[in-house]
Amino acid sequence: MDHLIDFEPVGRRGRCPRGETLMDCARQLGVGLAGLCGGIGGCGQCVVQIVDGDVSRPTSEDAERLSADALAQGYRLACRTIPLADCKVRVPLESLTSSQRTQVEGEETAAAPDPLAQVYIVTLQPPSLDDLRADAGRLADALREQHGVSATHVDLQVMRKISPSLRACVDPDSGEWRVRAAIREGEVIGLLSPDASPLGLAVDLGTTKIAAYLVDLTHGRTLASSGLMNPQIAYGEDVVARISLAEQQEAKRTLLQQLAVEALNQLASELCARVEASVSQIVDAVVVGNTAMHHLLLGLPVKQLALAPYVPAVASAVNVKARDLGVRLAPGAYVHLLPNVAGYVGGDHVAMLLATQIEEKRGVVLAIDIGTNTEICLSSDGVLTSASCASGPAFEGAHIRHGMRAASGAIERLRLLEDRTEYQTIGGGPPAGLCGSGIVDTMAQLFLAGVLDQHGRMRDHPRVREADGVREFVLVDEPTLGGRPVETRRSAIVFTQQDVRQVQLAKGAMRAGIELLLATGGRKIEEIDSVIIAGAFGSYIDIANAITIGLLPRLPLERFRQVGNAAGMGAKLALISRTQRETARALASRIGYLELAAHPLFSTTFAQSMLLG
Amino acid sequence: MDHLIDFEPVGRRGRCPRGETLMDCARQLGVGLAGLCGGIGGCGQCVVQIVDGDVSRPTSEDAERLSADALAQGYRLACRTIPLADCKVRVPLESLTSSQRTQVEGEETAAAPDPLAQVYIVTLQPPSLDDLRADAGRLADALREQHGVSATHVDLQVMRKISPSLRACVDPDSGEWRVRAAIREGEVIGLLSPDASPLGLAVDLGTTKIAAYLVDLTHGRTLASSGLMNPQIAYGEDVVARISLAEQQEAKRTLLQQLAVEALNQLASELCARVEASVSQIVDAVVVGNTAMHHLLLGLPVKQLALAPYVPAVASAVNVKARDLGVRLAPGAYVHLLPNVAGYVGGDHVAMLLATQIEEKRGVVLAIDIGTNTEICLSSDGVLTSASCASGPAFEGAHIRHGMRAASGAIERLRLLEDRTEYQTIGGGPPAGLCGSGIVDTMAQLFLAGVLDQHGRMRDHPRVREADGVREFVLVDEPTLGGRPVETRRSAIVFTQQDVRQVQLAKGAMRAGIELLLATGGRKIEEIDSVIIAGAFGSYIDIANAITIGLLPRLPLERFRQVGNAAGMGAKLALISRTQRETARALASRIGYLELAAHPLFSTTFAQSMLLG
Repeated sequence: MDHLIDFEPVGRRGRCPRGETLMDCARQLGVGLAGLCGGIGGCGQCVVQIVDGDVSRPTSEDAERLSADALAQGYRLACRTIPLADCKVRVPLESLTSSQRTQVEGEETAAAPDPLAQVYIVTLQPPSLDDLRADAGRLADALREQHGVSATHVDLQVMRKISPSLRACVDPDSGEWRVRAAIREGEVIGLLSPDASPLGLAVDLGTTKIAAYLVDLTHGRTLASSGLMNPQIAYGEDVVARISLAEQQEAKRTLLQQLAVEALNQLASELCARVEASVSQIVDAVVVGNTAMHHLLLGLPVKQLALAPYVPAVASAVNVKARDLGVRLAPGAYVHLLPNVAGYVGGDHVAMLLATQIEEKRGVVLAIDIGTNTEICLSSDGVLTSASCASGPAFEGAHIRHGMRAASGAIERLRLLEDRTEYQTIGGGPPAGLCGSGIVDTMAQLFLAGVLDQHGRMRDHPRVREADGVREFVLVDEPTLGGRPVETRRSAIVFTQQDVRQVQLAKGAMRAGIELLLATGGRKIEEIDSVIIAGAFGSYIDIANAITIGLLPRLPLERFRQVGNAAGMGAKLALISRTQRETARALASRIGYLELAAHPLFSTTFAQSMLLG
Repeated sequence: MDHLIDFEPVGRRGRCPRGETLMDCARQLGVGLAGLCGGIGGCGQCVVQIVDGDVSRPTSEDAERLSADALAQGYRLACRTIPLADCKVRVPLESLTSSQRTQVEGEETAAAPDPLAQVYIVTLQPPSLDDLRADAGRLADALREQHGVSATHVDLQVMRKISPSLRACVDPDSGEWRVRAAIREGEVIGLLSPDASPLGLAVDLGTTKIAAYLVDLTHGRTLASSGLMNPQIAYGEDVVARISLAEQQEAKRTLLQQLAVEALNQLASELCARVEASVSQIVDAVVVGNTAMHHLLLGLPVKQLALAPYVPAVASAVNVKARDLGVRLAPGAYVHLLPNVAGYVGGDHVAMLLATQIEEKRGVVLAIDIGTNTEICLSSDGVLTSASCASGPAFEGAHIRHGMRAASGAIERLRLLEDRTEYQTIGGGPPAGLCGSGIVDTMAQLFLAGVLDQHGRMRDHPRVREADGVREFVLVDEPTLGGRPVETRRSAIVFTQQDVRQVQLAKGAMRAGIELLLATGGRKIEEIDSVIIAGAFGSYIDIANAITIGLLPRLPLERFRQVGNAAGMGAKLALISRTQRETARALASRIGYLELAAHPLFSTTFAQSMLLG
């Protein structure tokens, strides 16, 4: 009897033989768990959190390394813990030997900096018997006189600091007060010391990954960027799972909200630390995400998102005080969320379209952001129609036997040479599984070699074998020494008939979206002038292989452009420029939405789109 | 050895013989502490909180009636507790047999209802595949189509409720959603069921008393009103004491803020319960208070208020989300605070001037709100100048040997007939002490009878005696039976030479303010056309007696008008009418401020003003 262990957010799953520790299991599955002491509970580095399932009781080593509180929350030393049932295990970032690849780079689009939150240096005369103006009024007068800026109100948290803050900024020579005031639409949202430059935070809050950019608002320059796995993953891989969890209990909705907020705070702190700034210098933030992530971040109810006809609680752009969400920025700073288009087409899609400047392009343009949910926009001479396809998490490695996320050890490139495979792993170490781009390569290579037919049936091949009645293609053999299997825990890495079906479902959904958008717009594939591919997965896939399996339409390669994290770039544009923020709003209201599931041709198109080639 | 016990918020102080319980002491001082069991710790009604000073350890009866938490916070049964030192004891409202008199009534000024927060009934079609608008957008569209109202954003807390709220208001016949939306300056701040009428809360947050009015915003009618002692009293009688406490520690400032907020929540709940409404129907609130109360409610730093030149952190009108203060109203409701004029002339003064419509009056008008701090405004043909006098808490009964607040048992009227006194107590029961109006009467009667000379010196009289080297006038004798003192704990009630000095200081400060305002405005007393007297103390005093001692200027009685709680009425006006709110803003900016302490004639005028007659 063994147990199925699911390591998150790495996304690696596998069976752990009875009596073995979580550390053994992690090693066997290629999850890079930290550990210095050789698994004797001595170093305390292999801390994991048991999210679901029974494990052995805490040992004395656990009790020594972890607080009672931590133990109660399910934290354990992996090397001291034996699963007693199937388990879901969260591996905190600090327990991983190498971080996951989280795409943050994207093609930058230029925009003149004109941020909504502006910062002004003002000089004030301290009060005297002849000048008894209140501190806030004195500041407002100085802003008007010295900058022509009208500051009609002061955020409560700033108000609570204004008197000591002004008195702490005395110019030693003149005795005057000098301070930087951050103003947003007539509201004083922060007071900075005269030498602190104003910063902004742009965030692409993905279902799987979160990318954040710290931006110098004066020059519109990105100072630092960083990615993080969305910690909500431990509570559901896709939006549907998280929506269903959030609707079970108010407390779960709050938990998911807090996890997202903590991730934002962690990213903001980390980025600020990197450039030796303080989070209180961040005077504005823009977050983009799909509608579910948007709702979960705001703590909005999501029940109506999961029930037909799937309407959002809020679609228009939202401005909320960062503190109302629990996000720590300048005391009165806001978080701006770009508008959603529909229940499954969110602000991240709008941001992607903004960054790719799709509305300025002539002809027929297809913009695709491939993910657990894939959003596609067809621009037909400037008429925009978007659709959402439930492509599922197969390209994130989920529901694939040896699938995993793009972490160290993931096979990201693969070629089949006769009966031999060649591959490349992230980090270059021994292979642990397949990530999205590796999955596309595998599918394409198997199809080209005739191992898979058009319907995805796996045919005979020297590397094809059967296990438990299911055919599988051996990508990586069990390690051998002189031809004999060696005593090792690592198993072969295979791609099964079931894996093929999962990929077919994912690519079928996506391709059906493309077909139906084209049909609705009265366009044919060959009319497409360019295809913009955004998102992490889309950046790493081999376009030719994606065309081979029919994931992407058969067009000359030069018509494709892989733009990286365009949603993040769009968030940055809306952060640094009022005009861009307004363009995003206008874009969102111009986008027509095509509900694929309601389309009369959906099922036939979907079935057709599952074919390979 | 006995101990000095100070019962708050009743404001009654006295000595407790060693070994006696707090219950004995309260009875002796006329503090109406509840108790059913005869003081054996059986009924648990005489709960008090020890704010300061040592007392005996909790008994088993204390432990039985009070939680460990409550004991840790100083709660005790008065009948089981023996003071071991001088103590300050807070008597919670529920432990008092009768409530204190808290002035809430005031002369109403009419204003057409035109509240800033407006409520609209809207009917919405539920979403369908043909109409996928988001819930918030659907509501905004309905508001525009059905009422021509633009709702551009939704408060976060309302957003968090919008989807279930709309779906909970289905019309059983049509299947449509019907809801009342509360809109304030384009923001949706609340959703009410179609039959819930919109309410507003007006509050006069005084240093000593808090008066609150629950108002029907549709018709501008007051539905219920209530008063409460300001619970901050236990931590300082006057604003100076509270400012100094708040500046000692951030935690104390938070404590004072929370006490004020709890009082507002208590009043709001009580008023709503009285009219069978919910606090979530309160869509707007206006609070007026002096600058210190304003700052303490907002949690603003007050250090600069206590240091020359005494400038407020904020003077202009403030709008804050009620929830940011901890006040529970409709989810997105705001609290509006009227503007302050100066460090010691606050929004309550502005509200008083608003309610008395002083700017519309021709001639010379004096408006006075007598309190611990007395604010005076001189309107000279519409030119307004205000000043603040540190009159101190003598008229609240503080620093007066047998002074007390206007609670049950307080002597509120007193006449001297030869060597006999006649008096009337609040509630009609046995006398416990003197409240403000009783103090004024006493001073006037003693002066008229020649017991006090112009300088306040106490002369010989059959009822004047000496105790501990200080002269005192016996107002109420020790109880006797057939001429012999009876075995009782109640002492005589006296008015001492020191009490006279305290009153002289208070009235001197106030009268000096009047004189200097007149001098600055180039006016003489006889030119005054009318004197408006606002506030609780001002409503109950005998004007003739107040003129006799020189508290008020010698003018024909018909020129005086006692208007009750005009500050509260002003708050109500600003609540029900945008125009009035704007008038208050304009008023505040038009008021000239006279800093009395900086006036060259202040000390001579003050000395002169201390004279009686």
